Formats: sequence, structure tokens, C-alpha cells
Amino acid sequence: MSELRVFEWNTIVDFADTDAGGVVYYARYLEWAERARASLLRDCDLSNQQLWQQGIMFVVTRAEIDFKQSAKLDDPIKLETIIAKFRSVRLILNQNIYHRNNQNLLCSCVITLACLENKQQKPIKIPRFLSPRLRGKQE
Amino acid sequence: MSELRVFEWNTIVDFADTDAGGVVYYARYLEWAERARASLLRDCDLSNQQLWQQGIMFVVTRAEIDFKQSAKLDDPIKLETIIAKFRSVRLILNQNIYHRNNQNLLCSCVITLACLENKQQKPIKIPRFLSPRLRGKQE
Amino acid sequence: MSELRVFEWNTIVDFADTDAGGVVYYARYLEWAERARASLLRDCDLSNQQLWQQGIMFVVTRAEIDFKQSAKLDDPIKLETIIAKFRSVRLILNQNIYHRNNQNLLCSCVITLACLENKQQKPIKIPRFLSPRLRGKQE
Amino acid sequence: MSELRVFEWNTIVDFADTDAGGVVYYARYLEWAERARASLLRDCDLSNQQLWQQGIMFVVTRAEIDFKQSAKLDDPIKLETIIAKFRSVRLILNQNIYHRNNQNLLCSCVITLACLENKQQKPIKIPRFLSPRLRGKQE
Repeated sequence: MSELRVFEWNTIVDFADTDAGGVVYYARYLEWAERARASLLRDCDLSNQQLWQQGIMFVVTRAEIDFKQSAKLDDPIKLETIIAKFRSVRLILNQNIYHRNNQNLLCSCVITLACLENKQQKPIKIPRFLSPRLRGKQE
Repeated sequence: MSELRVFEWNTIVDFADTDAGGVVYYARYLEWAERARASLLRDCDLSNQQLWQQGIMFVVTRAEIDFKQSAKLDDPIKLETIIAKFRSVRLILNQNIYHRNNQNLLCSCVITLACLENKQQKPIKIPRFLSPRLRGKQE
Repeated sequence: MSELRVFEWNTIVDFADTDAGGVVYYARYLEWAERARASLLRDCDLSNQQLWQQGIMFVVTRAEIDFKQSAKLDDPIKLETIIAKFRSVRLILNQNIYHRNNQNLLCSCVITLACLENKQQKPIKIPRFLSPRLRGKQE
Repeated sequence: MSELRVFEWNTIVDFADTDAGGVVYYARYLEWAERARASLLRDCDLSNQQLWQQGIMFVVTRAEIDFKQSAKLDDPIKLETIIAKFRSVRLILNQNIYHRNNQNLLCSCVITLACLENKQQKPIKIPRFLSPRLRGKQE
């Protein structure tokens, strides 16, 4: 039985990420989650552009976010992504955001992505060529 | 038995809200939800600053978002907020985002807010003076 | 000699607009300026979509921004736009941002827009039908 | 005569950076410029937090931005910062944004920063300890 591959993406909290409460603005976590997914594709030698050229796109259909602790200016951030479920037309990702130094869990996201063919924007099966790359079995 | 008050907030989709997919960027819905909550407070003759001066603040502890249909440039948007549950230290809001012309539901959010006292940032009971205002019973 | 038409756009500072310095994040003024320009088009019974369908688009080629005073959470904001220069392929706009209550000038922007035909993205003359609308002479 | 130190910061264009025009949203360049300045401080073993603790802060008082070419999804971006002028209470930075592969200049910014003491927010001379670090003479 294979372990799930953990994709890591890092950033640092800059002013643009924060609000007048002195902490990271709550919608920014979703932006980080999107960047981490794009980085995940690049780690698999893919990109959103390439998927588009293959006639497919992934769209987020549901997001569940638990905000546990706040992050502050200059905090180093680590975002770990795991592909928790690999269904026929759907992926479910766990994306957890940590303070990179003390490993405190700041925010956990469960993101549901649907695979669409990009002309009619109808759901289609995730193409076979993607599966081994995303599961990390080619390594 | 009283009906729940529906708070309405409106906007129009501008370039800043969109992404290269030609539709509203998914994290932007959370930003609109925050603006709609600030507007709700103003509708109740309150503001985040006033709550702060009273020693309290509300923070989002959980967000569930279902993305149903996409919005495009220049679309008129209506966001309706209902305070679905009024607990001792917690509010649960339903925030639904519609195309203002055709009434299509674009995105539905369930937002959990915790009431904190703002020094120690510990949960406290929602102050009594807030309840009638938020429930709309003073009207 | 006709006076220049002043286009007004309003907003209120919400958390999304601010940063950990407790004031409006500096890039947000450019976002407001874009929204105010879209609103200006709507005030002239136009929209970016309509211009696109006519085969043209406006792009910002230069922005000069002077940051004079900061705005804070819940501040009511007024943005005034004047079309200062109306050249053959170019518009120059003055966009000034004020605190709506005390009229303090917070930020002044000089924005240069080029008119492009949208296929080759080459500069073209601003179409004749636009001039009276933007100048407000039809009123 | 010493050469100016060039500080480099890199990013990749993700959906969050783009708009419905298919290119990077124009205000996003200012956000990148801010991140690049924070990175510059870290390259000098400083941070905004540390400056704050020393009683000072830098604020942007003027930005001039020339938008020359657009960047698209997945484009690798390089931002180069040079401290062009080092005045008593003021820094002027040239921040140029390039496509990292073809070296095309996408956007050039001239950013004026004022040094303020952070209580009264009055201009003060840039502290002596900063000068060698920012000029890179300690290396």
C-alpha cells in the first residue's frame, strides 16, 4: 500500500496578506491554497495551461476551511497538500497551512475539485495520464 | 414566531474580481461575504470599530462554500445574509450570492463566527445589547 | 467653454482593504481606481464588455500615484474621476480619493489609458461615438 | 565608485494574479513590488517588524508605474530592485519586472519611500545602521 504524496509550498506573510486586525486576512488562505495547487501541478511536470490544451480544467466546487490560529507579518508559512480522494470526475484535497517554524496548524482546508472538459464545461472522467503523475507512482 | 431578517448587499463584477478563466476568482466570494457582514453591522447601527471599543470582536472560525455557477465581468451581484443560528458564543450565518438579474444562485456560504473579548482573544458570550439589533426585533 | 464632468464613485473601507499597518493597503487604491473607471463607463451607458464587442479596449499604460494620507477601517471614501486630456489614441484621467466626511485628499492618481483594437492589440483612435458620452456633451 | 546592489525576487503568475483580460491585473504589480521590498529587507538581515521595534517604518509616498507588456498565467517573473537614491529621509527605488525566461521588461516602477518614526508618524532621518546594509557595503 502506497503512502500519499505530500506536496509542499512555502511563502512568507507580507503586508499584502494581512488586514487591520494585524493578522492574515481570512480569504488569503484560499489564495495560498490555489497557488499551492498550481505548484503541485508543476511538481508533476504539468500546468493549468497544459491541462487546458488537453481540453480539461479543474474547478473548485466546494471548500471547507477551519481557521485555527492566526498568522502575523513576516511569519514563514508552509502549506501541505495531499490528494485525499481520487474519484472518477472529482479530486478531494486536504490542504493544511502551518507556521513553518513552530509547526502550529493555522488553517485546514478540504477542497473538492471537479474535472471539466473545457468547451461545454461538463464533468468528465479525470484522464488516465494524470493519475500516475498526481499519485506520484511514476517516481 | 418571527421570520429571520435578510440583509442584502450588492456589488458589480469588475476586473479586480475576475481571473484568467474569465470568471470571478474563487477567493473573492469570501471577500464579498466579509463586506456583506460589515454592511450588516452598519444596517444595525454598529461597526467593527464600535464592537472593538466595547471590548469584543467576531472572528470567522469555519467557512463552508459551495461554488455552483460562475459570475462574469459586469454581472450585477446580490449577497443575502441570514443569521441562521444565534448561540451563546457563536453565530452561524448563511450567505448566499446571486446574479441580481436572473436570481441564479452562484455560491452559498455557511460562516461560523466566534465572539471573542479582544484583549486575551478568549471566547465570550455575545453581549445582550447585540441580540435585538442583529435579530431585528427593535424594528 | 464647457466644464469637465466629474464622475463620483463611493466605497467604505472594509478589512479586505486594509493591512497590518491598520490602514488601507497601498495597491488597493489602484483597484478602487479601476472600479471607479468601470462605474464611469456605466454612468455613460457603456461597459467594458460593450467596448470589447465594438472591437476596442482601454489599457492602463502609466499610473502616477501620490499617497498623501491614510484611510482606516470603516472610513467612507469618495473617488472623483475627471477626464483631464482627451487625445486621439489616449485618455489621461485624474482620479482623486477623498475621505467622504472631512473631504481630506488621501491619494491622487494620474492614469494614462491607451485605446487598442482588441484583435492585434494595436493602438487605434478613440471611436467618435465615445467622445460625446465621455465628455458628457449629450446631456 | 561602487555599483548599485541589485536585489532579485521571483514569482510565477497564478490565477490569483490575473484578470478576465487573461493577463496580470494591473494593481498586482504593486503588490509584487511590496513583497520584493520585504524580501530585500530579509536579504539585508532586516524585517519590517525589526524596523518597527527600532521605532521606524517606511511608507510609500509616491509610485510611478509604466506598464509595457502583459504577463500571462504560468509566466515566470523576476523583479529587480535597485536603491537608486539614498536621501536623508527618503529612498527612491527602481523596481523592474521581467519575464524571467525571455527577459522582456513588463513593468517598471519608481517608488518613493519616506522614513517615519512610528509614534507620531513624522519623517525622520534614515538611521545610520541601515545605510551600509541597504547599500551592501558590509559584504
